[in-house]
Amino acid sequence: MVRRSLSVAIVCSLGLLTAVATTFAQNRNAKQASTATSAQRTAAAGTPAAGTPAAGTQTAGEVPPPPPAIEISREALAGAIGVREVAQRSDESTQLLEELTTEVGQRFTGTAGDKAGVEWAVKKLRALGFENVRTQEVIVPRWIRGEASFDVLSPFPMPMVTTALGGSIGTADEGLEGPIVMVQDIPALQALPEGTVRGKIVFFNGRMERTRDGSGYGKAVRVRAEGPSIAAALGATGIVIRSVGTSKNRIAHTGTLSYKVSAPRIPAVSISNPDADLLERQVAQTRPGGKIAGNQVMVRMRVTARDLPQVRSANVIGDLPGTDLANEIVLIGAHLDSWDLGQGVQDDGAGVAIAIAAARAAVAVNPRARRTIRVVLFANEEFGLSGAARYPLEEGDDNVARHAFAMEADLGDGPVWKLSARVPPTYWATIEQVHRVVKSLDVELGDNVSAGGADLGPLRRRGVPVLAPQLDATTYFDVHHTINDTLDQVDPSHLRQSTAVFAVAAYAAAMVDGPTPRLPEEQAQ
Amino acid sequence: MVRRSLSVAIVCSLGLLTAVATTFAQNRNAKQASTATSAQRTAAAGTPAAGTPAAGTQTAGEVPPPPPAIEISREALAGAIGVREVAQRSDESTQLLEELTTEVGQRFTGTAGDKAGVEWAVKKLRALGFENVRTQEVIVPRWIRGEASFDVLSPFPMPMVTTALGGSIGTADEGLEGPIVMVQDIPALQALPEGTVRGKIVFFNGRMERTRDGSGYGKAVRVRAEGPSIAAALGATGIVIRSVGTSKNRIAHTGTLSYKVSAPRIPAVSISNPDADLLERQVAQTRPGGKIAGNQVMVRMRVTARDLPQVRSANVIGDLPGTDLANEIVLIGAHLDSWDLGQGVQDDGAGVAIAIAAARAAVAVNPRARRTIRVVLFANEEFGLSGAARYPLEEGDDNVARHAFAMEADLGDGPVWKLSARVPPTYWATIEQVHRVVKSLDVELGDNVSAGGADLGPLRRRGVPVLAPQLDATTYFDVHHTINDTLDQVDPSHLRQSTAVFAVAAYAAAMVDGPTPRLPEEQAQ
Repeated sequence: MVRRSLSVAIVCSLGLLTAVATTFAQNRNAKQASTATSAQRTAAAGTPAAGTPAAGTQTAGEVPPPPPAIEISREALAGAIGVREVAQRSDESTQLLEELTTEVGQRFTGTAGDKAGVEWAVKKLRALGFENVRTQEVIVPRWIRGEASFDVLSPFPMPMVTTALGGSIGTADEGLEGPIVMVQDIPALQALPEGTVRGKIVFFNGRMERTRDGSGYGKAVRVRAEGPSIAAALGATGIVIRSVGTSKNRIAHTGTLSYKVSAPRIPAVSISNPDADLLERQVAQTRPGGKIAGNQVMVRMRVTARDLPQVRSANVIGDLPGTDLANEIVLIGAHLDSWDLGQGVQDDGAGVAIAIAAARAAVAVNPRARRTIRVVLFANEEFGLSGAARYPLEEGDDNVARHAFAMEADLGDGPVWKLSARVPPTYWATIEQVHRVVKSLDVELGDNVSAGGADLGPLRRRGVPVLAPQLDATTYFDVHHTINDTLDQVDPSHLRQSTAVFAVAAYAAAMVDGPTPRLPEEQAQ
Repeated sequence: MVRRSLSVAIVCSLGLLTAVATTFAQNRNAKQASTATSAQRTAAAGTPAAGTPAAGTQTAGEVPPPPPAIEISREALAGAIGVREVAQRSDESTQLLEELTTEVGQRFTGTAGDKAGVEWAVKKLRALGFENVRTQEVIVPRWIRGEASFDVLSPFPMPMVTTALGGSIGTADEGLEGPIVMVQDIPALQALPEGTVRGKIVFFNGRMERTRDGSGYGKAVRVRAEGPSIAAALGATGIVIRSVGTSKNRIAHTGTLSYKVSAPRIPAVSISNPDADLLERQVAQTRPGGKIAGNQVMVRMRVTARDLPQVRSANVIGDLPGTDLANEIVLIGAHLDSWDLGQGVQDDGAGVAIAIAAARAAVAVNPRARRTIRVVLFANEEFGLSGAARYPLEEGDDNVARHAFAMEADLGDGPVWKLSARVPPTYWATIEQVHRVVKSLDVELGDNVSAGGADLGPLRRRGVPVLAPQLDATTYFDVHHTINDTLDQVDPSHLRQSTAVFAVAAYAAAMVDGPTPRLPEEQAQ
């Protein structure tokens, strides 16, 4: 789950972007209490919602009269409850995830697994009754992880569990040796006296915080994305980071780095949290007051990673046609690719399963969904968001204009703990309706500033409103981007609940009246 | 933690042998309720205890008058409470374990780490005031793990997380390919029609049960120890086992196998539990009713393990001298070696730390411990119990006769949940006294049939009574024999409690009156 913007790679996800956006909104509304009320939530999006009891009570006097709230009909609401029940009774998402894991496994961009994943998805969507099932060719990078080793040579020789960061160059055959300079984060690195890291290997030792909304990841991941080039610009010969993950297991976390063109490329690896603890203890002993003060911790890292020429992958798309508004689309997205270490289960097989099963549940009731429910399984999210960028280009402006709402599942199996969105304020009433339907599934009402996931960025920026059921990320980063991303880590009851919430949201989005909604410019960015 | 007897390797530990012995005892006393009373516990050892309220009420009439119970004095009891308090206030065991992990790490038999461990232990015991600190040379095997890979080739190609079983031979350079035959255990393998596994690779898929006393390990481990030779005798070309461990992590568990001279040697690996789940699902699809019934699951395994000539290691011994009974010894043992994958923390750095810190706490009060408290850190427990076998031979019969009691810590950081023993029945009253002192630390009173740990076997068989504080093994087998055996998995409060219980037991053993106790023949075996 990585998003690369033009100059700097920032990792995004439903939860993360929501958190960032919430921070912005809170800054703008500094006097608001941190627990948002309904009015605050919608106010944060720029305009108070109509049709809610609290609306208009926030900043009395200067607010223009709100436009009429848009809601779904009483019959559609009954249908939404039906969708919830259908999804709650089904274990289709678990079955899909088990099949994908058993028959395909890892689907790292450009590999045979990626290709097998595309074939599986096409076959599966067809078998499940999707129409117009098709692929969209996407050109993707091909990077070979190879082998990596990271050994402390002195003072206390120890091998460590390591893996290359995605996109890292390899070392020379004999590896790269040097002393370690330990820092917590990029500001700490930049605060060191000039020349401190020249010819040395920088060890970023900052810990990721465990959070429900995944915001701990957003904070910790900067060293992975930007660390290599910033350290290289200061003369470092390599970097090693504490895994950007919350696991206490001896498992290293990968994920993309982003080399700047302005700095030398240097090899970059991560080590597991327990190994980082050990390295930290060795470094502590070499510092003033330590048992062997004045010594250096020397390490050797070896990476055989390399780039190959670009190859082809594909977005996979399938539709479940609507009725009177069939020309309009409610998109449920997930990404089909995964990292190579695990089996792409929580990231993002779970999202694939949720998207497909939710779409199916959303068309299983009466009244029938009016808009077409479309599942899009994006290619190569992990290594550059290639599929997400390609999708609106392939669709063309006319077709993008037919996308009424979009949603995405890319933060594990859930459960959904909060229903957020980024919709034109008049549609907030619909979000509240959806919330009332899923409240019994332990879902809180969120805010209207969620970005809705990395793969939705290109659509959102073109004005497509976003529904954002937020998946609980508390344990997600224990397995994310590691060999531990396997089916054994999935809770079928979570998957079922998440599917139900996505299904209800998709159904409501397919039922709501009115012209195709567009986000105003300030919400689209 | 592995014990090899002459023909068959059976894995033993405090908890495991206790469990086995308890079973025997229960069979002999089939009418007894499963929840043992005090009288039942001592009766199970052959003779009812005197001095306990329940004694003599069990099988009235035929029991000879019990010999007088042996207890420690009121002053010694006060001293024992003092020992408990000293140990409870100290974090010495945690400090020791952190040092051993940071400065030495893994101590696999015959490696540089093993040597560094011996050097660390000698230095540490001397620094902590132990007397007569010395090493005993032990000849040990030297096995190189090398690399291992295990890949499913068809129907669904997938790499799996694997490691060689300890002592496995290597495969040919190009690896070993073949179809999988999946069975749950050895009886299931032996029940197959003749020729079923000829030229194939046997997959032992039985799951280990999580238990507090570690008995799940004893049941599950047989496939690891005996599986290779039994499968080879049936014509198999290799074996793969589901990890003998309780972790859901994608981490493979090693441990010794035991090749029989009567069967061809075949390579043997384990795969992680999640990988075994995956392999099981693939096999299921090839069976009747499966999606691709009639197909075979083909795999390739590759192992570069090999044996080198034997090398030298050492037991490390240190004494804290007693007073009027200083000629007699209370031994606290642990093993200094570890497997190579992790850092030897729970297995058995924790035991090393408990033994040293408990011995020190046991001599920190008045009245002073009368017998000498000896710490013995055994060489090569994991790969053949070499140090345990060597110790009584080096000591000689006269010195072994001076060993009053022995105890051992080799089941992780604890806490101690039960106080068991194998002592002459007259000493059971002392065990009950010890239990009253440690009851406030949530310790149950156990039974008098514990074997007390693999490294104590040779002493016990020579009549040395055993005190057996039983360490809680509920989570131990999540990390045991894996790369996950690191300091991060240790709970300092557990380590402190375990140290306190071992210290109180050692102190009481050092204070009890009477001639040097010997186990009667039927208890010694």
